Amino acid sequence: MIKAGIIGVTGYTGAELLRLLYSHQHVEIAKVASRSNQGNQVSDHHYHLLKAIDLVEEDLSDLAGFVQGLDVVFLALPHGTASEVVAQIGGKVKIIDLSADFRLKSLDTYTKWYGVEHSCPEFLAHSVYGLPELYRDAIKDAEIVANPGCYPTSIILGLYPLLQEGLVSPSSVLIADSKSGVSGAGKKTADHTHFPEINENFYAYNPGKHRHTPEIQQELRAAGSLESLPVVFSPHLVPMSRGILSTIYTELTSDLSLEEIYRIYDASYQDESFVRVRKDRLPQTKFVSGSNYCDIGIVKNEETNTLIVVSAIDNLMRGASGQAVMNMNIMFGLPEKTGIDFLPVYP
Amino acid sequence: MIKAGIIGVTGYTGAELLRLLYSHQHVEIAKVASRSNQGNQVSDHHYHLLKAIDLVEEDLSDLAGFVQGLDVVFLALPHGTASEVVAQIGGKVKIIDLSADFRLKSLDTYTKWYGVEHSCPEFLAHSVYGLPELYRDAIKDAEIVANPGCYPTSIILGLYPLLQEGLVSPSSVLIADSKSGVSGAGKKTADHTHFPEINENFYAYNPGKHRHTPEIQQELRAAGSLESLPVVFSPHLVPMSRGILSTIYTELTSDLSLEEIYRIYDASYQDESFVRVRKDRLPQTKFVSGSNYCDIGIVKNEETNTLIVVSAIDNLMRGASGQAVMNMNIMFGLPEKTGIDFLPVYP
Amino acid sequence: MIKAGIIGVTGYTGAELLRLLYSHQHVEIAKVASRSNQGNQVSDHHYHLLKAIDLVEEDLSDLAGFVQGLDVVFLALPHGTASEVVAQIGGKVKIIDLSADFRLKSLDTYTKWYGVEHSCPEFLAHSVYGLPELYRDAIKDAEIVANPGCYPTSIILGLYPLLQEGLVSPSSVLIADSKSGVSGAGKKTADHTHFPEINENFYAYNPGKHRHTPEIQQELRAAGSLESLPVVFSPHLVPMSRGILSTIYTELTSDLSLEEIYRIYDASYQDESFVRVRKDRLPQTKFVSGSNYCDIGIVKNEETNTLIVVSAIDNLMRGASGQAVMNMNIMFGLPEKTGIDFLPVYP
Amino acid sequence: MIKAGIIGVTGYTGAELLRLLYSHQHVEIAKVASRSNQGNQVSDHHYHLLKAIDLVEEDLSDLAGFVQGLDVVFLALPHGTASEVVAQIGGKVKIIDLSADFRLKSLDTYTKWYGVEHSCPEFLAHSVYGLPELYRDAIKDAEIVANPGCYPTSIILGLYPLLQEGLVSPSSVLIADSKSGVSGAGKKTADHTHFPEINENFYAYNPGKHRHTPEIQQELRAAGSLESLPVVFSPHLVPMSRGILSTIYTELTSDLSLEEIYRIYDASYQDESFVRVRKDRLPQTKFVSGSNYCDIGIVKNEETNTLIVVSAIDNLMRGASGQAVMNMNIMFGLPEKTGIDFLPVYP
Repeated sequence: MIKAGIIGVTGYTGAELLRLLYSHQHVEIAKVASRSNQGNQVSDHHYHLLKAIDLVEEDLSDLAGFVQGLDVVFLALPHGTASEVVAQIGGKVKIIDLSADFRLKSLDTYTKWYGVEHSCPEFLAHSVYGLPELYRDAIKDAEIVANPGCYPTSIILGLYPLLQEGLVSPSSVLIADSKSGVSGAGKKTADHTHFPEINENFYAYNPGKHRHTPEIQQELRAAGSLESLPVVFSPHLVPMSRGILSTIYTELTSDLSLEEIYRIYDASYQDESFVRVRKDRLPQTKFVSGSNYCDIGIVKNEETNTLIVVSAIDNLMRGASGQAVMNMNIMFGLPEKTGIDFLPVYP
Repeated sequence: MIKAGIIGVTGYTGAELLRLLYSHQHVEIAKVASRSNQGNQVSDHHYHLLKAIDLVEEDLSDLAGFVQGLDVVFLALPHGTASEVVAQIGGKVKIIDLSADFRLKSLDTYTKWYGVEHSCPEFLAHSVYGLPELYRDAIKDAEIVANPGCYPTSIILGLYPLLQEGLVSPSSVLIADSKSGVSGAGKKTADHTHFPEINENFYAYNPGKHRHTPEIQQELRAAGSLESLPVVFSPHLVPMSRGILSTIYTELTSDLSLEEIYRIYDASYQDESFVRVRKDRLPQTKFVSGSNYCDIGIVKNEETNTLIVVSAIDNLMRGASGQAVMNMNIMFGLPEKTGIDFLPVYP
Repeated sequence: MIKAGIIGVTGYTGAELLRLLYSHQHVEIAKVASRSNQGNQVSDHHYHLLKAIDLVEEDLSDLAGFVQGLDVVFLALPHGTASEVVAQIGGKVKIIDLSADFRLKSLDTYTKWYGVEHSCPEFLAHSVYGLPELYRDAIKDAEIVANPGCYPTSIILGLYPLLQEGLVSPSSVLIADSKSGVSGAGKKTADHTHFPEINENFYAYNPGKHRHTPEIQQELRAAGSLESLPVVFSPHLVPMSRGILSTIYTELTSDLSLEEIYRIYDASYQDESFVRVRKDRLPQTKFVSGSNYCDIGIVKNEETNTLIVVSAIDNLMRGASGQAVMNMNIMFGLPEKTGIDFLPVYP
Repeated sequence: MIKAGIIGVTGYTGAELLRLLYSHQHVEIAKVASRSNQGNQVSDHHYHLLKAIDLVEEDLSDLAGFVQGLDVVFLALPHGTASEVVAQIGGKVKIIDLSADFRLKSLDTYTKWYGVEHSCPEFLAHSVYGLPELYRDAIKDAEIVANPGCYPTSIILGLYPLLQEGLVSPSSVLIADSKSGVSGAGKKTADHTHFPEINENFYAYNPGKHRHTPEIQQELRAAGSLESLPVVFSPHLVPMSRGILSTIYTELTSDLSLEEIYRIYDASYQDESFVRVRKDRLPQTKFVSGSNYCDIGIVKNEETNTLIVVSAIDNLMRGASGQAVMNMNIMFGLPEKTGIDFLPVYP
């Protein structure tokens, strides 16, 4: 049994980790900790866990003690806080960090976009970007896995096959217009997530300026071995709880037919357990809800030579906790699907 | 491995059965059939099942052939159709019927409320009402399990401990005010389930006159060994996909404190895997969403000596397919939680 | 032109008052005030009012100055705060108070249920309960109109004709099972109104114990000239923004047919502009959304001799600001429909 | 009083016309007709209109008789059907057509995209595209106003000031990523608008291929006096009833600052009653819900020299019936705001 700990168990990604690890046949949730509910049962605020999970949340005062005896720790903490924790436990236990703190290779970029000091930049070099389809081998031996952001996951998986083949034009602007359910904003209350404010409402926030932009750019460039790639990323809020759909517009360097493009995607993804290249109809967030799938569909606009890639994930599963468990499976040599091989919840 | 078949796989309860049985370690989904999509892959219309389930739907023309080699058949069919199917396969295979056709002991009551002829009343005597907490022993040996209705499940579980103890007054009217998500209306389109019509809307339908009334009465009377019990059952439609909450008003025959009442509920349910008597806060449908739990809470209105019982289930899980799998586990001597022991999907 | 002021313009009922009075041909919104946004334009936080309403919010430091030159003041304040304000401006201007502070005739009952001291109990005697169908004449000359609560409005209008005729049995418990959209909880954020928490969720809160209970009892008793009437009132939260539906269960003192009951309702309401007795189908909250209507439908459960009355209103219109404007019209001798005679927003 | 008729009163735009014209002080709704409910009261299926609107729907057999005595007729019919009706009544009465039949100047384009024969192409030359901010003068004298599509309205208003100034680059692809509430799909039931299918769901449909593309292109080119302009238009479905938000990506021909761009928008729109150029925050569909406003916000992505224009409308108001009434006001010399000058319904 893998002894797992979760630090930051009060939020939505923490709750999703509990849900997944509870049913994982090779994992024991040994310890949990949080910054705000220490001393309480997790079911004292995660009311859905009554009678199911019997765990008291520890505080973060003795992190070295917390990780003792653990094989892996999941960090479901805000950026900034995660690196503070890693500064104390880095090297002592395998870490899967769901925050943004270890995703960006460039410390300058991190500081500029996140506006905080990084507490342990020395670990950046040891961290691996945890997108299994791209970095499976490196994840196997990683000390720290930087679990990708929800938006970047949907966009990078959506473009990866094209980039690998050198088909994305680095001279034209790539537009990623993404839409997310409200759980992506976290569990903390805010004016804009008050039910009457976002119900029957839809809008863009930080278009062209969202913090996930440098993460998206870093990985798209790496996948395409490109020196630069102009990207405009615009997130939107959808009145639903879960799900991300990204509509991506790009110009190809070569005039391929839709069939040829699908062939490229199939070559990349046909053996992947959790990517579905859809030819039957375009992705919908409901098709993947509650599951670890990333669904991808493609449309070609002939008049403008624009390729439209649509990708859908569940933001708390493939966009956070499901992918984290997938990474854990890889790190511990388990079949990748273990504990996350269930079907979407429909309807 | 239990070889299972599903007849009527196109609807929501059929899809939920696929979701559950797909992950069930002791079940192979051997065959599926439907009345409308024969010859097609289930993923041809259940788009969320692409790349996951590879099964072609058979038609219902040769039911004897269909059940050959199967250990159990789930019927996810409309009332009337289910009994037609049982007329052909009854006695040849274990049957778990999710329709209303085998729930009522009285053929007259069935005919009056459902307005159709029953195709095989001779099987009524062999069928067992599949509410495990009440009929566990009988279910073990049942040929046909009549899986309870969604509303009745929430109401009967909510009142069972009181009835057992003879605490429900048979002389005062019991009010069951229930509220359901829209998936309870099935997958077939209708004017009133068109999104703009039910979104931002709430209403009662058939209050005091819904078809589940005789089922509720039959089981409440049986549980309480009462000759009669006046029940008013009023269902409502909630703009959400899943979930049922019942608010039940009843007068007790004895003046018990809330603590004494909770003690009675605990005695009935503390060893049950899928019933949670909540003292921390009242049930919410989200606390049980996607799971097989029935959550129960109690409030006593001292001024009027009215007991208010609130119960919540997921209508497609505990109210249909989850309970059906629980029944299958009992019929085949498996631990009851097998394949349905996962946590609610939150948020 | 009536010069109107609104104190407490930042919340949802304040915003709804702005919407209504903006289009009211006989009203000028002369002044607005708030406790939290003084010095700002109302459109600085009510973003939907940009370019439409040009008013700066005053603070509440000089209330005597505020009301100078005004004909009427609407108070859209929390309970407790409203009576503090009335203590300063009572007698100087006509007041329509949307809080609970002047609804209860009994100071003791107020103190017990609301847990605060009343700042000006001397005005209780001068206030009129602002339900026009019941108190139209008294409203005409009122100094202070206590605008009814949203839940009580739906329940009292639903039962008034029966009570007037002495048909409600004072010896059996009356059950009012009400369901409200989330705007009823106000604009202030809270954990339970965070979108992912209430979306796809439904539950009861304070069943049998909600603060609107004494208001409901006071008015039902008054309408029926009853010394006592046992009432159980249970509110629920619906994942929608607007709307209240009450399902009311009562036993009649006389065995009337449904037709006779409808005749009684018609006699009460056929000349009312804003009550619709529906015989075509039961009320739905969407039928009244955005309008001042109260829709009422009736079902009789013969087996148990229970009458089920269903009533629907828009909680911010008939349940708050629409009714407030209706009261203003009456106080100033205008046709009651002025400024609120528009159709429901559908869909 | 203007005597108005509505043909096609059963759908959502028909219902919205009734709502608006009911309160319009200079209009009498003299006659209504439909293809499916002739002989019935409109409230027989528009349940929200009970006790408010007393009109029997006529059939379409004698259209010449229907228009007799009318000053204006609104056509709320599907494409193809509208031109059949105009073939019979064209020239006999002023017509405001809410379908697509008279929007495209090119008959070939119409036939190609809509796949039906046009029944009266001779009227195309007499029709005016009813976007008041662009064609106000022509609308005054129009015989037939082709009321714009909902998506095109949001996109054209969003780009008009830039196009007028020659700032939109005709050599780079313009991306219009639009998102609509479900009422845009009409009142007819369909699998994809069944509540459990679209609730908690989000997806693109016909990206790059939707029928509104040629309408958008025609008007953007005209506004910019451009021979060609490559446009990719991608609509999406949002789980809400009302509202459209368009996120538009374009490259400017000149390097203007955000302030300069806002100045250009202000110059175009500051005197317009129903366009709000927002500098406080980006548009949200809730800011305009139930009103005739079009809200516009602008973001500049410096790195890629991409301008992001966000525009929001209520699809049934500014995107259909509100704009139709605005056009009627212009045609009859009334102040443009008459009957549609009310505030957004919030929340």
